[in-house]
Amino acid sequence: MPLSGPIVLSDNRYGKAENRVVRFFRGGPRHEIRDVNVSTTLRGDFAAAYTDGDQRQVLPTDTQKHMAYVFAEKQGLTTVEDYALALGRHFTDTVGPVRSARVDVDSYGWQRVTVDGAGHDHTWVRQGPEVRTVAVTVAGTGAEQRAWVIGGISDLVVLKSTGSEFADFYTDEFTTLAPTDDRVLATALDVRWRFAEIEGVDWDEVHAGIRARLLAVFATQYSKALQQTLYAMGSAVLEEFPVLAEIRLSAPNKHHFAYDLERFGIDNPGEVFWAADRPYGSIHATLARADAPDAGPAWTI
Amino acid sequence: MPLSGPIVLSDNRYGKAENRVVRFFRGGPRHEIRDVNVSTTLRGDFAAAYTDGDQRQVLPTDTQKHMAYVFAEKQGLTTVEDYALALGRHFTDTVGPVRSARVDVDSYGWQRVTVDGAGHDHTWVRQGPEVRTVAVTVAGTGAEQRAWVIGGISDLVVLKSTGSEFADFYTDEFTTLAPTDDRVLATALDVRWRFAEIEGVDWDEVHAGIRARLLAVFATQYSKALQQTLYAMGSAVLEEFPVLAEIRLSAPNKHHFAYDLERFGIDNPGEVFWAADRPYGSIHATLARADAPDAGPAWTI
Amino acid sequence: MPLSGPIVLSDNRYGKAENRVVRFFRGGPRHEIRDVNVSTTLRGDFAAAYTDGDQRQVLPTDTQKHMAYVFAEKQGLTTVEDYALALGRHFTDTVGPVRSARVDVDSYGWQRVTVDGAGHDHTWVRQGPEVRTVAVTVAGTGAEQRAWVIGGISDLVVLKSTGSEFADFYTDEFTTLAPTDDRVLATALDVRWRFAEIEGVDWDEVHAGIRARLLAVFATQYSKALQQTLYAMGSAVLEEFPVLAEIRLSAPNKHHFAYDLERFGIDNPGEVFWAADRPYGSIHATLARADAPDAGPAWTI
Amino acid sequence: MPLSGPIVLSDNRYGKAENRVVRFFRGGPRHEIRDVNVSTTLRGDFAAAYTDGDQRQVLPTDTQKHMAYVFAEKQGLTTVEDYALALGRHFTDTVGPVRSARVDVDSYGWQRVTVDGAGHDHTWVRQGPEVRTVAVTVAGTGAEQRAWVIGGISDLVVLKSTGSEFADFYTDEFTTLAPTDDRVLATALDVRWRFAEIEGVDWDEVHAGIRARLLAVFATQYSKALQQTLYAMGSAVLEEFPVLAEIRLSAPNKHHFAYDLERFGIDNPGEVFWAADRPYGSIHATLARADAPDAGPAWTI
Repeated sequence: MPLSGPIVLSDNRYGKAENRVVRFFRGGPRHEIRDVNVSTTLRGDFAAAYTDGDQRQVLPTDTQKHMAYVFAEKQGLTTVEDYALALGRHFTDTVGPVRSARVDVDSYGWQRVTVDGAGHDHTWVRQGPEVRTVAVTVAGTGAEQRAWVIGGISDLVVLKSTGSEFADFYTDEFTTLAPTDDRVLATALDVRWRFAEIEGVDWDEVHAGIRARLLAVFATQYSKALQQTLYAMGSAVLEEFPVLAEIRLSAPNKHHFAYDLERFGIDNPGEVFWAADRPYGSIHATLARADAPDAGPAWTI
Repeated sequence: MPLSGPIVLSDNRYGKAENRVVRFFRGGPRHEIRDVNVSTTLRGDFAAAYTDGDQRQVLPTDTQKHMAYVFAEKQGLTTVEDYALALGRHFTDTVGPVRSARVDVDSYGWQRVTVDGAGHDHTWVRQGPEVRTVAVTVAGTGAEQRAWVIGGISDLVVLKSTGSEFADFYTDEFTTLAPTDDRVLATALDVRWRFAEIEGVDWDEVHAGIRARLLAVFATQYSKALQQTLYAMGSAVLEEFPVLAEIRLSAPNKHHFAYDLERFGIDNPGEVFWAADRPYGSIHATLARADAPDAGPAWTI
Repeated sequence: MPLSGPIVLSDNRYGKAENRVVRFFRGGPRHEIRDVNVSTTLRGDFAAAYTDGDQRQVLPTDTQKHMAYVFAEKQGLTTVEDYALALGRHFTDTVGPVRSARVDVDSYGWQRVTVDGAGHDHTWVRQGPEVRTVAVTVAGTGAEQRAWVIGGISDLVVLKSTGSEFADFYTDEFTTLAPTDDRVLATALDVRWRFAEIEGVDWDEVHAGIRARLLAVFATQYSKALQQTLYAMGSAVLEEFPVLAEIRLSAPNKHHFAYDLERFGIDNPGEVFWAADRPYGSIHATLARADAPDAGPAWTI
Repeated sequence: MPLSGPIVLSDNRYGKAENRVVRFFRGGPRHEIRDVNVSTTLRGDFAAAYTDGDQRQVLPTDTQKHMAYVFAEKQGLTTVEDYALALGRHFTDTVGPVRSARVDVDSYGWQRVTVDGAGHDHTWVRQGPEVRTVAVTVAGTGAEQRAWVIGGISDLVVLKSTGSEFADFYTDEFTTLAPTDDRVLATALDVRWRFAEIEGVDWDEVHAGIRARLLAVFATQYSKALQQTLYAMGSAVLEEFPVLAEIRLSAPNKHHFAYDLERFGIDNPGEVFWAADRPYGSIHATLARADAPDAGPAWTI
């Protein structure tokens, strides 16, 4: 039956996306660099802009852009988490119509160039493809104010040349896949973790610790499937970092197919592979502590 | 306080992403083409694969890939919506552990090549960048089975050279933007609409109608801001198509800045612009009929 | 034997790349749009900048950027070819150290939005992925000045569902490919043509004519291989347009593989295909009139 | 005057592009990985395929693909240079119609995952964005055969936060750029070097040495402009490696603009920058030894 009820604006948000901010610390001869991509998103009393074209409550995205740069100077961008929290709080605290602000920051890695065996004072070479991410949501003002922090890492591309199988799976009339007891396992990890608390956290230490844990489990755990590997990584991280409430792991299964050389009379004992682009498996897992606080709007974009 | 509760697998899903399927209809001399990118995602009794590496309930993503091609032949891919529904139902109906299936299809446009004034029988040229999208979710089996369809269009890049302003906005100490009463408005529309019912819908007609409506409103409505334009487009679509429950519009504000030529003694009366890449405004609106049925898992990826 | 001769700067060039210029014509209610990406490259007396860091002869790339916008206003950007010629001549004519200038312009297509059956006055929707290209080289000054124009089209993605074979090819011990008498032929054409003369050319008419000719030949000529198709397209264009000296065609062979459904007892009579990303065939042909004037630096980037 | 001479096929080539080959060495517990993207291009007696659709001399690109994988197994892919030489020689030596073969290989870096302080035996994390490149051309057979090797590195993204200026440049009526004595210098280096000889070269050692030299010069040399920096890098490399005949450097000048915070009463002493996408400067230099042997077809794609 056709719908005939009134049309309502059930959700709205807006912001400035992909502000490319680079911040240097040049207090002495040894400089530091922070290279980030900042997006801000606001929710609040903005309905009139949609329904009536009334901008009086709308903080221009141009002004939001300014703030991304202003806070890089004032707050300093020592850690992306503290920077995002400060920027989010600015919007909720000082801009009347704003009810909540989300700040997404992608942080790109740079490594000091080695000259004569030592890291150079003010020259770096870009490290990638991995990206450190943070998504902060701040809602409310004053004593009512709450904030959520989601840390993360994306494009952490890993591969192991053995220690992985895929067998004993569900079969039906359309199954053609052969089970294997030794395959290449490769993926580009996208992992996000929600902090149960945000006071007194050593953000850099936790990030480095989680990254190391993810890599170590991927390397050392025998994998019966990518699902099992994701779960093992996630639970290892939650166990080691009780400050975390929840972890979400996404991983494309980047297939490597052994190239058939036998038709040419050549043996290929797990040595030569074709790395396929598409399609790819797409595996996802969310793990949480049973006593985790409610996520609230933390995951809402 | 650090968390100490047990770690639980609170959500999981998996599938095969980006199966590039091309289907021709060659029953007579005048062929037809469907060019799609298909991703399938399954939810169900798969926890043991994560926690214990037990694959017995896991339908391999390789088998899912096969099905994307099998249904392109069997079902025929006449419309992407019916194809996605048939594929989704296959998984829930025939694969025991599956509780729900989501099928995402991106469909690429091709236009017949003109030869001697007429469209050629079996040759096409790619039309873009816009993409027609569909996301179908099927849950349950038998009489309990339910299905949701979300149609959409992405990368519909539009621009108007006048009929747009931005003024009377919220200002604070960080405001530097000048109001303007004549600006370029440009965006790349990403619009998704949820169907209130899915029986008896002429999918192609609705898609073409919505596309035409979006473009006409963008062109003809004077814009006080992109927010207002999105709302006007969304409400026009919901009014014209009572089969729709909800519409979500996302639009980057692709800024065009008038190039300062006056410093060279040259007048630039709204003629020469610099098209910026980043940052960009990011505007979002969701409109719904007040009597719309519940969305259920329709929007859940 | 190790080399010990002096080190010489054997070539150098510099410029400003990817100036995104959008030019509107708003003289009346019916506007026109030109949306281009402009790159300028200069050669000349710039060696001292490299060897000694002496910038006195170096026109900043910032100034080059200004000129891309200035000429969009002054010259008007009616056709990209005339715009590029004017811009190139500016550098050689007015900037002392410049010996030659190359101007590359990519032009993006926009189609008027249809409202009530007619094209709207000031609103467009982007057409793609194809791009119109031009590369102009201007060398020397005064009576010695010469100019070359290379027109082109890139990302013209075409596909035919029959009328193509591949058989009777060279075989050796590593051949596994089966000959086929009916296959899908698909490619993304990148075609560039050098004009033998540049005075009095109707640039838009020639571009449209070449595009139409390329498409018509691709559609109607039975293809024994992509090589043959490229040659047929190129010779047809040179025959129809005696103003052209030379044409270069590049084309990836975008493979479409019939999906094996027989293993599931399903017939696939050339209907369902898998569109592969990589690897792809890479086919290239250059055709020229035997009496074509020398290309000079026309093809030198 | 319109051209009327006969149309000739003045150049042609074809091949298989972007074969994604991954090769493991698994002789013992400590595995090695080579991850490459291989493109082959053939020139020879292929005109009949273009003019007459006669494939009898055409080695299918499918067979070329096989060879990329066959040589990864047989030759072993210990170094990309030796692999490319072997593959190129295969085509010229064994496929009758082939006159010359070019083999392009992009090689992606992987770093062993650290577990308990040591590099893991069979697990790696991808290092990027930089890519090691090689382009080999082999022409002729038997005693007439010659081969050229061009090594390279691309996407070596570097940045220095001081030690760079740009001043005393050419000015005209369109100059607005202010000179600066302290700016951020950032680029993505694309460097290629031609070997004067190819016997007895330790490819890996030379590659590592050139990379280190490029980085050290970029870091330590005070830069009056990117042109000077490129020249300094190139001449340093040629001096240290007399096995090289020539080096070509390309570098976008990735502009970082100090963000104007003074309008908000905030000092910005070279600390907060906006990293722009487009346009960018585009600087190129070629340096050669005066006694370098002729390049022949080495640079011809």
